[in-house]
Amino acid sequence: MNINDLPLEVGVIGAIIALLGLSIAFSLYKQLSNQKIENETVASIGNKIQSGAMAFLNAEYRILIIFVFIVAALLFAGGQINEDLGLEVSIAFLMGAFASALAGNIGMRAATAANTRTAMAANKDGQGAALQVAYNGGAVMGLCVGGLGLLGISIMFVMFGEINEITYISGFGMGASSIALFARVGGGIYTKAADVGADLVGKVMAGIPEDDPRNPGVIADNVGDNVGDVAGMGADIFESFVGSLIAAMVIASTIKWTNLGNMANESVITNHNEVLMVLPLLLAIIGFIASVIGVFSMRILKEGDPAEALRYTTFIGAFLFWLGGFGALIIFELPMQPLYAIISGSIVGILIGLVTEYYTSTEKIFGVKPKAVMRISEASKRGPATNAISGLSVGMESVFLPLILIALGIYISNYFAGVYGIALAAMGMLATVGVTMTVDAYGPVADNAGGISEMSGLGPETRKITDALDSIGNTTAATGKGFAIGSAALTALALFAAFTTSVAYYRNVDTVQILITDPKVVIGLLVGGSLPFLIGALTMSSVGRAAEEMVDEIVRQFEIMKKALKGTLNEEDLEDINKWPETIEVKEDGNMKVYPDSEQCVKISTDSAIREMVMPGVIAVFSPLIVGFLLDAEGLAGMLAGATVTGVLLALFMANAGGSWDNAKKAIEAGELEGESKGGEAHSAAVIGDTIGDPFKDTSGPSLNILIKLMSIVSLVIVPVIV
Amino acid sequence: MNINDLPLEVGVIGAIIALLGLSIAFSLYKQLSNQKIENETVASIGNKIQSGAMAFLNAEYRILIIFVFIVAALLFAGGQINEDLGLEVSIAFLMGAFASALAGNIGMRAATAANTRTAMAANKDGQGAALQVAYNGGAVMGLCVGGLGLLGISIMFVMFGEINEITYISGFGMGASSIALFARVGGGIYTKAADVGADLVGKVMAGIPEDDPRNPGVIADNVGDNVGDVAGMGADIFESFVGSLIAAMVIASTIKWTNLGNMANESVITNHNEVLMVLPLLLAIIGFIASVIGVFSMRILKEGDPAEALRYTTFIGAFLFWLGGFGALIIFELPMQPLYAIISGSIVGILIGLVTEYYTSTEKIFGVKPKAVMRISEASKRGPATNAISGLSVGMESVFLPLILIALGIYISNYFAGVYGIALAAMGMLATVGVTMTVDAYGPVADNAGGISEMSGLGPETRKITDALDSIGNTTAATGKGFAIGSAALTALALFAAFTTSVAYYRNVDTVQILITDPKVVIGLLVGGSLPFLIGALTMSSVGRAAEEMVDEIVRQFEIMKKALKGTLNEEDLEDINKWPETIEVKEDGNMKVYPDSEQCVKISTDSAIREMVMPGVIAVFSPLIVGFLLDAEGLAGMLAGATVTGVLLALFMANAGGSWDNAKKAIEAGELEGESKGGEAHSAAVIGDTIGDPFKDTSGPSLNILIKLMSIVSLVIVPVIV
Repeated sequence: MNINDLPLEVGVIGAIIALLGLSIAFSLYKQLSNQKIENETVASIGNKIQSGAMAFLNAEYRILIIFVFIVAALLFAGGQINEDLGLEVSIAFLMGAFASALAGNIGMRAATAANTRTAMAANKDGQGAALQVAYNGGAVMGLCVGGLGLLGISIMFVMFGEINEITYISGFGMGASSIALFARVGGGIYTKAADVGADLVGKVMAGIPEDDPRNPGVIADNVGDNVGDVAGMGADIFESFVGSLIAAMVIASTIKWTNLGNMANESVITNHNEVLMVLPLLLAIIGFIASVIGVFSMRILKEGDPAEALRYTTFIGAFLFWLGGFGALIIFELPMQPLYAIISGSIVGILIGLVTEYYTSTEKIFGVKPKAVMRISEASKRGPATNAISGLSVGMESVFLPLILIALGIYISNYFAGVYGIALAAMGMLATVGVTMTVDAYGPVADNAGGISEMSGLGPETRKITDALDSIGNTTAATGKGFAIGSAALTALALFAAFTTSVAYYRNVDTVQILITDPKVVIGLLVGGSLPFLIGALTMSSVGRAAEEMVDEIVRQFEIMKKALKGTLNEEDLEDINKWPETIEVKEDGNMKVYPDSEQCVKISTDSAIREMVMPGVIAVFSPLIVGFLLDAEGLAGMLAGATVTGVLLALFMANAGGSWDNAKKAIEAGELEGESKGGEAHSAAVIGDTIGDPFKDTSGPSLNILIKLMSIVSLVIVPVIV
Repeated sequence: MNINDLPLEVGVIGAIIALLGLSIAFSLYKQLSNQKIENETVASIGNKIQSGAMAFLNAEYRILIIFVFIVAALLFAGGQINEDLGLEVSIAFLMGAFASALAGNIGMRAATAANTRTAMAANKDGQGAALQVAYNGGAVMGLCVGGLGLLGISIMFVMFGEINEITYISGFGMGASSIALFARVGGGIYTKAADVGADLVGKVMAGIPEDDPRNPGVIADNVGDNVGDVAGMGADIFESFVGSLIAAMVIASTIKWTNLGNMANESVITNHNEVLMVLPLLLAIIGFIASVIGVFSMRILKEGDPAEALRYTTFIGAFLFWLGGFGALIIFELPMQPLYAIISGSIVGILIGLVTEYYTSTEKIFGVKPKAVMRISEASKRGPATNAISGLSVGMESVFLPLILIALGIYISNYFAGVYGIALAAMGMLATVGVTMTVDAYGPVADNAGGISEMSGLGPETRKITDALDSIGNTTAATGKGFAIGSAALTALALFAAFTTSVAYYRNVDTVQILITDPKVVIGLLVGGSLPFLIGALTMSSVGRAAEEMVDEIVRQFEIMKKALKGTLNEEDLEDINKWPETIEVKEDGNMKVYPDSEQCVKISTDSAIREMVMPGVIAVFSPLIVGFLLDAEGLAGMLAGATVTGVLLALFMANAGGSWDNAKKAIEAGELEGESKGGEAHSAAVIGDTIGDPFKDTSGPSLNILIKLMSIVSLVIVPVIV
């Protein structure tokens, strides 16, 4: 069969498959939300978390919609300068933004519906059932990310599938990327303001434990898990997924046969540009189908070991994807090199996940017990300074192997199919996003379920199940983060390659000569390299500021609650309390018990997240523009390269340092450090390290992932104007 | 006059001027060491510090001499593969290594002689005299670094001043660089093992204050200041100085007239390659003379404000250098563009120093009080975690402006004279090294003098003077670090340019096409970018390990001292004590007072520094070789670019975070944070931050400075083999 005859058809099929997948997601969501929650406390806490999460999303959307329309207008106006911008790109941009926001919205709804149901299932039906509920909650997000990504790109392809129109599609990626940056930065600040704030309260005021229901920050903390780890992570992965597809298509549209690496030795394909443009979409369809099967395999796997069940669902997805890819290449009589590039990407992704696990976990990997985390636990014995030094050192060390792996992935995929192969390698990591994202989103659902069963007093049996599910979620979260960074790196590099091929196209030359010896390129490298540090600094200090506000509010409320118990409230206090949603319960002695105003804490987290996300967003979107105009495409290319290199490095450093600090604390709590236990000297040093790591791993690190992709895709979009 | 007629003469004149300067240094040293120290305690402490410092240097040399001869043999053997390596390069290498080691040795001797004399001068003759003594101690180092650098390069120029031989000279830089890396890494580990160890003892065992004479680690701590800040800093700056000269000469030897930027518009100079090769040496001679005058201007300035006096000596040096450069260009009828490039470098260096001061100091700059450090002090109120987060955030933020400044420096100097201009800009920062290094080395002398007057009980009047001198030293140290990184960055970039021109020369092409889109280059960028993180991790954990050993030894000795006081020593203890150098004093009650064995602590610092410096050294020297052979000159170029970008960023981040943590602690001690003082909650949080910052600012950060230069120069040397 000749794939060349049916490009449009592939787009239509893609849209249909995507819609089918989305309807599965929808029915899973319906199933979830139709389950009645019989326990009232659980239902009430669940409601608070859900409405807090939605309050954040709505506040975020109010800002984003302004931003999105301004950028869309600019893109439209850009059509006056160059016809390759204009209406088409702004439509693509709006659709990308909408799809990403929609995926985040639905995923959040599902996750916040699943957390209570998981707790209830653990309470009533045991571990297997609870695992399935939590997994289904994640699956709604996973299938939405995969389905909406595939749907969006399919529609784009139907609209702009011609060679000379394909660059319009990058607008879609830019839209998705913009939403992703705000979601990641905003979500990251939200979640850590709540978390660090809650941690600090224990320090500032003895007597309010972190997860005490009287602590008004607890709900915000739980909301944060959803906002950061579900919506933020989802937008990040969504962006990588469509980014890798777009990069592959844009590169395909102009690449010369001779530049396809080892594939160039095969007999020439007629109209190879068209064929190579359709191929990524075809592979994405196969990957999505494989993901759906992977997701459904949980129905059979759920009764076994839950950690293995989660892992196997992703393996099944990946394996079916490879198999399907192999079949497709045979059917369409295409050479096998693209498959090799894809497999190399997948394997690199898995290995980066393993390295991440090695540096951030204490669980055995293939029978070897990792030492890095225990090194930090050991160092905690000598106080917080040595804990911090060794955590930073572990984080810095942990970047080396992943970078070597990424380099290897580039080498191999480039060997097989040139820069097109690099984009395919990124797709190899991302095409089964439907199932990998499911596993990622499972984590915060299980985590929330644990918190909810604790707060509602569902008993130790239930707690044991949710703890088990939660602890697996921690490992999948660490691996998922490594995977997210690895795929972001390959995607950014693929987009970079797309950028340079696009520059060459608009300059009407064969290949663009961006020399590393050109001072403009060197300047770009230096400036670009420093941007991730700047964004890292901004986001870290945002978390600090927001956490301080949170602490002040918690302390303020607690003072009032204490006064109420003692019957010493003054008029001002009473006026204040009357505004609280659930307020007062009169006790036997005539004094009152006042319930905390958790909405106020949710509001603080929301407001500061929204306020603080603007600056990083503006820097990310406008710095490519400024550098592009001042230093031409050469300087911009240098900037992208510099930002990608230091962005990936810093993101890995921060994520892994944070993960290892976290688990060093947990290892001490679990009694793995001789002579030390919870509450001891070493433990309190480890708690400090964990708090340092919070903004590292959940705010700044993940933000950098998106920064590098967003800057690359903005550059790709503005090529027609700056050249 | 035509400079073209007298290249050899310039070399001979350079050697003569250098020897004159060195004899001045020698007479300053004689003056210093002839001053009798009348106070016995001072003399005894001074002796211990001096012999500790020399013990370290000797141990270091024993390892270095093996390393140096192996590398020299390899370079010699390389002559079998390509005639452009061989005997000449290995001789140059040996001379560079020898010159750097000699400068470090003399400088250390002078600094450790000057510290006691400064304390005595403060005690007897007042502030002006004490300032002059400390300054003279620094001047011996400054003039040795400048003089030996100039002498070495002059001799090299006389030997290899021909266009087709000039690349041999890079062997000299490689020798200097190798010594520098070991000195910086070893010195950095030494000084922080002692410092962090001493800090931790306070935590582990109450009752031994950090600077108590009974603490056996105190001497090691004082030795560390000399080893790290005198010898380490000196080797670093020596290397940058000769590196920038070498880069300028190598670039000059092959650059085309048309590639000289704006200078290409001037009327063509006959034999411009020869002329441009001599010019840097001529400028270095002028810079050295200007430095000597700057140094001597202290004799007049010393009675004024000491901070201004120090600053003015460097300004006088810089201004005379510009003036001299202007004169030379007029006399030899050369265009003015080189001067503009030089001035742009100088100004960038000064501005980077100011930015560094802004981020690391609380002193007003042009009437503006910097806020960064106070942000960290504020955050300390909420505990060590927020202190650490805000310190890391300040450090990350602080990299942005310096990078923009470096980018501007590149832009301007390249505009005036192409890549040759970039090398001249580096020289602009470094040609007056004689006086800038004097100010740098002044710092640790003043610091040591303070410690000595405290330990010997010279009284509050003396202490007040030494404190004043010391606090100025802290500011010059911060500025000096920023300056060192800035100059290292420009030097590394200049060497990188020299590397690529050399590759072009050996490939026999006009310019080498190192495309940023070439996957080999991308792989190089990624791998190179990760190396500074790896070296940073290694050096940080080395400090951790060494500090732990130090703590154990201090605790062990203290237990014995306590037993001795109580009369409960057992036989084993007695046997042990008998080996201690100054041991026992029998007290009235028959029990004994045992003096600590500080030599043992010196030995621990020495041994661990020597042991731990090997791995980073091996990585730095061999990674260019490996990448060069695996990925050709393209991959190697990518690696250098990646390592330079992340190396500069990490070095700035670590140095500035460390400096700001340090001063956040000091600000609280000085009562600048309302409601907080020494010993309070915020202060103890700030002490933790300061301890985290110790290896950041004094070990890992500075090591990265050298790493990037060493890798560049190794690459430059091995060009003939890998091409």
